[in-house]
Amino acid sequence: MRIVVVGGVAAGLSAASRARRIDPSAEIVVFEKGKRISYGACGLPYLLEGQVRSIEQLVVYKPEFFEKERNIRIRTESEVAAVHHGRREAVLASGERVRYDRLVWAAGARPARRAAQPRVFRLHTDEDALRLNEFLEAERPRTAAVAGGGYIGLEAATALRARGLRVRLYEASTALLHREDAWLTKRVTERLEQCGVELRLNEPVDPESLEAGVVIDATGLRPNVEVLEQAGAALGRTGALAVSEHMETSLHGVFAAGDCCEARHIVTGRPVWIPLGTTANRMGRVAGANAAGRRERFEGVAGTSIVRVAGLAVAVTGLSQQQARREGFSPVEAVVEGRERARYFFGKTIAVQLVADRRSRRLLGAAVIGDDGVLARINTAAAALAAGMDVETLAGLDLAYAPPYSAVADPLLVCAQQLLRLLDR
Amino acid sequence: MRIVVVGGVAAGLSAASRARRIDPSAEIVVFEKGKRISYGACGLPYLLEGQVRSIEQLVVYKPEFFEKERNIRIRTESEVAAVHHGRREAVLASGERVRYDRLVWAAGARPARRAAQPRVFRLHTDEDALRLNEFLEAERPRTAAVAGGGYIGLEAATALRARGLRVRLYEASTALLHREDAWLTKRVTERLEQCGVELRLNEPVDPESLEAGVVIDATGLRPNVEVLEQAGAALGRTGALAVSEHMETSLHGVFAAGDCCEARHIVTGRPVWIPLGTTANRMGRVAGANAAGRRERFEGVAGTSIVRVAGLAVAVTGLSQQQARREGFSPVEAVVEGRERARYFFGKTIAVQLVADRRSRRLLGAAVIGDDGVLARINTAAAALAAGMDVETLAGLDLAYAPPYSAVADPLLVCAQQLLRLLDR
Repeated sequence: MRIVVVGGVAAGLSAASRARRIDPSAEIVVFEKGKRISYGACGLPYLLEGQVRSIEQLVVYKPEFFEKERNIRIRTESEVAAVHHGRREAVLASGERVRYDRLVWAAGARPARRAAQPRVFRLHTDEDALRLNEFLEAERPRTAAVAGGGYIGLEAATALRARGLRVRLYEASTALLHREDAWLTKRVTERLEQCGVELRLNEPVDPESLEAGVVIDATGLRPNVEVLEQAGAALGRTGALAVSEHMETSLHGVFAAGDCCEARHIVTGRPVWIPLGTTANRMGRVAGANAAGRRERFEGVAGTSIVRVAGLAVAVTGLSQQQARREGFSPVEAVVEGRERARYFFGKTIAVQLVADRRSRRLLGAAVIGDDGVLARINTAAAALAAGMDVETLAGLDLAYAPPYSAVADPLLVCAQQLLRLLDR
Repeated sequence: MRIVVVGGVAAGLSAASRARRIDPSAEIVVFEKGKRISYGACGLPYLLEGQVRSIEQLVVYKPEFFEKERNIRIRTESEVAAVHHGRREAVLASGERVRYDRLVWAAGARPARRAAQPRVFRLHTDEDALRLNEFLEAERPRTAAVAGGGYIGLEAATALRARGLRVRLYEASTALLHREDAWLTKRVTERLEQCGVELRLNEPVDPESLEAGVVIDATGLRPNVEVLEQAGAALGRTGALAVSEHMETSLHGVFAAGDCCEARHIVTGRPVWIPLGTTANRMGRVAGANAAGRRERFEGVAGTSIVRVAGLAVAVTGLSQQQARREGFSPVEAVVEGRERARYFFGKTIAVQLVADRRSRRLLGAAVIGDDGVLARINTAAAALAAGMDVETLAGLDLAYAPPYSAVADPLLVCAQQLLRLLDR
């Protein structure tokens, strides 16, 4: 049994490791087109900001670890250029042919456009971040333009501002963080402006034509599907690879995981494409288990994420009110402000937004903005979403309280109580 | 309609406020035997530690707030000494008689014993904390003995140690924090000893006979049930007041909430007595709603709590393995250590313990020990318990990740994955 994994960052290595644990005797090979494997791509903005001092700090495991500890062969700088599934064969860019019994496609995503100008950068791979850092140190630009108000765009804007540049951020839509939600966008906008980032919403731009000392193109990603598509794998309506709940593509024995494929949304039940590192790991584990002969199911995604924007923690899970309406729900929304912990433990302000369905009274989504206390509230909401919890049960949760850690009236519960009143109207 | 509430701290004021919101015209009176109402009793140890500078900082609302803003009459230093439910009449210690249509009994709990010696203190009421503080400032004792290894005992030991006293702590059972769990007790013991608290487990003592400059008696509480019991209300098997899911006692029209009554445990379905401030508030809300004519259900308790012990956050929810076995489950347990957040954001160690039932594969309980990241993990587990979630779903939760806030492989999920492997064995 030979399992070939394409992609050596999050999903690919999770798949390979899981497969090894299940099948101690299979031959497992991972092909990675870049130089490094197993680096935390989510840490790249912090390399820019200076919190991370070198790319090596982001590397979780070196190839030797996988080779020696897990008996997984790692081949870097090896791009898979074609797949002939009839012959169970992958072809490398070098022309080398590799036979497989099971294939796990974890080739990730790539920026939608290629940069042409030397002062235009991406922040997608380790190499992107290193080149950008070198440029900043050598050229010392005083102004920066960032195109794209998603996670990467906001983190890049924050990092460049922290380095002292004058930063202008452009977002094509009216919403930041891909969250159609005026409340969230307004709160984040205010914070960015407070820390001196100039914001232009609803302004689509061509990054190549922006005038600034340095330009970050964070205008979006595209899933790496072409090779598998040519091999006959079906794409979903999002343009990413369609997969079963077992993470199998339409090609029998070919699994996919991570930023290249879709996943079922746990609230709507429909396939979505939300490229995120943790999701990639979870998908990879399931794809790897099934490639090794198990029959595991991927639980789906809620789009849960958290990002630090100019010192503010901004987190979302599930659907915003506007997204919920588009999905056919009858959404009701409540927002409350509270404190993360007791005042005498310097509790900072936290804002919680909850969205529920009027008919089923089920929770549909949440957004939380604050400081260190955001994680607890968003993860609790994410667990409630996974359980299909109604607002009554949410409002009655038995959560932990002690003054150094939380608030006696937890803002999540207070918000759920307010939502109940709106549902009862 | 006159609603009489007995008790003006957590449960009583929650009940009165909720009743007012539902019925704008009812006459609502709160009787409190102490001088103050609405103070955060959970903050008393921090008064001792110095984090809280005066008792006034712990007072959430003054009587005037309730009188003016909520049209709720507050009568302090007014103890209810008898209830004649046939006549719908409460009798104060002064002899005054007060008629009611609905009664909410939220009289709390009290220390099991009265202190005789002047250097023996409790840490139950605001007055206790003030007297203790005065004694410490006047007498400057150099040694302290604490009897009882529950929340109050551990917080008191921590606070006295922080004030420079040599502290010895006695616990009658072999378990700290009322959690029959050797792992948790060992971790907490190690930390206490590291910070110089001498610990004597399995050593029942009479606080009055302990030799030390100051003694804290934290040996346990007893629910204040006697007055209602004499009025004919039934007690449960725990010795606290028995209540329906609507928080109604066996006396029609008499509700109870807080530390004086039982609640249904959401894992076992059985009545338990776990006196905690947040639970008291939640019970109070339901009791108040039903006293005002609604028909609301109390969701139950999971015993979720968090406490700071010598700088360590220690949290539990649901059942420990030993408790689960006694309740007839077939428990399986996993423990993992991980990091609260990315290493380059100074992520500290966190340990997660999960207990599940082998037959149903349902989560039964969790314990988490660490720092600021404990709240997120324990509350997520508490939500999972409320949903009756199985370990597969828990392991597949879509939780939030960004390096400043969390770990890419969340220790809660890693622990759930490990538990799955044990369940599959």
